[in-house]
This record gives sequence, structure tokens and C-alpha cells, in this order.
Amino acid sequence: MLKQYCREKCEIIDQALAKFIPGENVYPPILFEAMRYSLFAGGKRLRPIMLMAAADAVGGAGIHYLNVACGLEMIHTYSLIHDDLPAMDDDDYRRGKLTSHKVFGEGMAILAGDALLTAAFTTMLSQPSVPPAVVLKVLGEISTAAGANGMIGGQVIDLSSEGKTIDLETVKLMHQGKTGALFEAALRAGAQLAGAVEWQVAALTEYAQQFGLAFQITDDILDVTGSQEKIGKPVGSDIRNSKATYVTLYSLEEAKRMACQSVDSALSALSQFGTEADVLRKMVRSLLTRDS
Amino acid sequence: MLKQYCREKCEIIDQALAKFIPGENVYPPILFEAMRYSLFAGGKRLRPIMLMAAADAVGGAGIHYLNVACGLEMIHTYSLIHDDLPAMDDDDYRRGKLTSHKVFGEGMAILAGDALLTAAFTTMLSQPSVPPAVVLKVLGEISTAAGANGMIGGQVIDLSSEGKTIDLETVKLMHQGKTGALFEAALRAGAQLAGAVEWQVAALTEYAQQFGLAFQITDDILDVTGSQEKIGKPVGSDIRNSKATYVTLYSLEEAKRMACQSVDSALSALSQFGTEADVLRKMVRSLLTRDS
Repeated sequence: MLKQYCREKCEIIDQALAKFIPGENVYPPILFEAMRYSLFAGGKRLRPIMLMAAADAVGGAGIHYLNVACGLEMIHTYSLIHDDLPAMDDDDYRRGKLTSHKVFGEGMAILAGDALLTAAFTTMLSQPSVPPAVVLKVLGEISTAAGANGMIGGQVIDLSSEGKTIDLETVKLMHQGKTGALFEAALRAGAQLAGAVEWQVAALTEYAQQFGLAFQITDDILDVTGSQEKIGKPVGSDIRNSKATYVTLYSLEEAKRMACQSVDSALSALSQFGTEADVLRKMVRSLLTRDS
Repeated sequence: MLKQYCREKCEIIDQALAKFIPGENVYPPILFEAMRYSLFAGGKRLRPIMLMAAADAVGGAGIHYLNVACGLEMIHTYSLIHDDLPAMDDDDYRRGKLTSHKVFGEGMAILAGDALLTAAFTTMLSQPSVPPAVVLKVLGEISTAAGANGMIGGQVIDLSSEGKTIDLETVKLMHQGKTGALFEAALRAGAQLAGAVEWQVAALTEYAQQFGLAFQITDDILDVTGSQEKIGKPVGSDIRNSKATYVTLYSLEEAKRMACQSVDSALSALSQFGTEADVLRKMVRSLLTRDS
């Protein structure tokens, strides 16, 4: 049922993204080509799906908030393009496909990222059917999460830590910025757009934080136990690059235990919700069996 | 009197920028340092001043719209950081100071640009004292002007035209994107935030378009007639780089005539305004005598 939900939502999100960032009758065509290349490179649409699932969980209909949902995916995609650049992680492949700068050149990859970030706001700012004051508040939270105190801050920690040993506290801050902040913004956005009351927003915030933690720990575990074909990068690359991960800082067994604990905490955060939150419950549980 | 107006507004804008992007008690400090390095590198604050002058011109008080005004300056600054990168124009100096990537490295310069673009939206989204629906509309126009169909599109044309001969039509499109779009957004934002009526917004849009044109033509003229010390780059660099400019496509004399014509058209666009628009009149006239 989770797969079915995700497949349905993915289709709707992909259609909306193709409409927001069109490929025909655009100028300059090469820029839109580069934006779409990364936008349709096989992303799982996790952030927009979580936004919708949060809206569903508070009794709304996630499907109404496609503008904000797609904006989150554009922000996520731009961050991947810039992270892959030679001046950052210098990756030639992502999900088995050549990265943007390998296909379009560095200059165009930087601009395609800039354009996706800007398009995210253009798209989100025209979110219909929500009181303007709510849109302003939600977008303020999303831009904060994506900015210097959130996602970009996390990437700066990552960049500054290259070749250095960093402690657990710094690793946590880095992940909270790089992935946690945007998950949290996605859940809070879905809830607030759908008119959630305070305790619901607070509970979903707690769920998001635990989800983000479990997501990162299981990501680190996959780097050791996954198959190259499925995770889209060589197994054990974190260890070879002497990256600090939950597995290298603790152990594989301890990391697995911590992942289970985060999943339990995320489930507890949802205890006051009914069956409308079942998708969120399944999503966090599925992290423990993810293979990509 | 124009100098006095600009000096006063500059001071207010600088104070607000320093508050929006603080230098103390921030994390990660290096990121904020990089953001502030470029933000306080001697910019003339032309876009925020024009936003304020437009609000003044329709009987409002520009000073009330500092959030949106400062957001425009952050967007302008991020675009300069990214334009200067080795993968783009590869400039080591701007306004006589080392460019961001020369000081902080390429990776950090890219992230500082990303963070300024994101901070622009965070700042603008919290613009007080304006109906939320108006803020949404104005920010929608600004993000469109800054995006793939505006400023970034112009930069893509520039990047794609390197070493090629481009025609006048393409040169115009490039400039309309690279500089014109944001000027237009600044004027329209100031007017709409201050509650302008339709004919006022239309007149200021026309003014902005003519201002943008005159700005670009006089920029091209300065490249030939200016002093290196004042323009901050070697005289005649456009010609040496075989860039298509109004001077190379026409002649110095013809370019001067075209600049005067645009200034006249900008002044005509203001014919229905009273003395409240005198600052805008002086600003466009001053382009004909600019030395930097």
C-alpha cells in the first residue's frame, strides 16, 4: 500500500514538475534542458511525497499543495547539482547517470542549479487555495531550512571537514543541515498548508526529526551493506574517503540499533494520530529495509 | 540632492543588510563571512534605492520596504559571485577587490552565492506592513525576473556566446535578462508595495525598461572612455575580449545618441508624476555623466 501511494503521488508530482519547468517553447533552451535533465534523473520524490502525506495525516488533501511540494523537489535537485561540482564532491555519476557538469559543463551546471532554486520560489509563491499569510509563513520556514542555517550550512560543514576528523556533534549538525532541515520543512509545510493545529504541527516536527536521523543512519549503513547497482555508487566509498559516518563512528551493529530507536521515536510521535497517518508510519518503517 | 538621497538610503540599506546577514554568533562562521565579504564590497545599492524611489514616487515611503529592497541587493550580489567564478567569467577582481572564490575558494564561493539567494527570499518573505497577497505577487515577479526567463537566462546567453559573434537582437535579450529584468522588478516592486494604481505601475515599468537600456549603453561607453581606476577594470576590455557591445555594434557617437534617447524616453514615462518622482528623473539623467 505504501508503494502504491508513492507510485500514484510520484506520477502526479512528475506531471506537475514537467508543467512548472517546461521543455518546449522555452528560452534559452539549453538552460531548461539542463534543469530538466537533473529534475527527471530518477529522484524518489521523497520530500514532496512527505509534504503530501503530512497534509493527509492532519485530515487535509496533500494533492492540493503541488506547488510547494514541487518547489521542495526543485530545491533538493539544485543542491545535488551543486554538491556534485568539481569544487565540491566532484562526482561524475549520480544514480548511474552522468552528473550535470559532466553533460553540460561546469558553468551551465551552476546556472541550472541557480535557476532551479529560483524556480522553486516562483512555483511555491503561486501556490493556490491557501491563505496568503499561511503561504508566506510556510515559505519562510522552507527558505530558512534551505539556507545558511540549514541545508547550505550543512554542506559548508561537509566541505570544511574534508580530510579532517570530525566529532559526532559536528556530524550530527552536518546531517541536520544537509538532510534533516528540509525533511522537517516538508512535514511542517504539509501540515500547516492543510490547516493543522499546534499539537499536530509539533508532533509532525518531532516525527520529521526522527525520520531524518533514521534516514541518515540507514544511508550510512547502506554504504557498507548495500549493492553498488542499487545505491548507485561504489560500496564502502565513505570508508575509503575517511568520511565520519554512524558506522565508522560507532559500529554496524550499534548503527542498526540507533536506526531502530529513531524509527520507534518517530512512531511514538504519531501516537495521537489515527489511520490517516498510516502512510507516514509505513514510510519511516520502510527505512529499516531500504536497499537504495 | 541626488547624492544626498543616495547617501542617506545607502546608510539605511547597509544597516539593514548587516542585521539580516549578521556576522556574530553565526554558524558556520566562514559561510557568513563569505556572504558578508561580497555583500559589503562597495556596491552602489542601485536596485534597493530604485525600489525605494519608486515607492516614494507613488506617494508611499520607500523606507518601509527594506526587506524586499535588501533582498534585491542579495540577489544582485549572489549573481556577481557566481558570474565571477572560473567556470563563468573567471574574474579575479571586482571593484578593485579580490573576488569571492579567490578569497574563500570555489566551493565556498558557490555556497555563499546559494546562501545569499536563499537569504534574499527568507528576508523578503518576512516583509512587514504589507498585505500578504501583495507580498506574494511582488515576490513572484522578483523571482521570475531573477530566474531562467530573466537574469539567469541572460547569463546563459552570455556564457553560450563566448567567442561567437552574436547579433544585436541577442545582445538586447542578454542585457534585458542580465540587468534589465531586475531593474524592472525593483521599480514595479516599490510601486506595488506602496499601493500604486495601474497607470503608475505601467509608467514605472516603461521607465525601468528605458533606464535599463541607458544603463547598459553607458556601461559599454564607459568601457571605452572610462578610467581604469574608476570603473575597476582595464579600459577597452570588452573590445579585447571581442564582446558584442553597443559601441562595437554601432559606434561611440551612435551609442551616445542612443543613450540620450533612452534617457529621454524614461523621462517621458514619468510625465504624469509630480515632484515625488524627481529622484527617479535625476537617477536616469545621471547615467549620461556616470564615470563608474
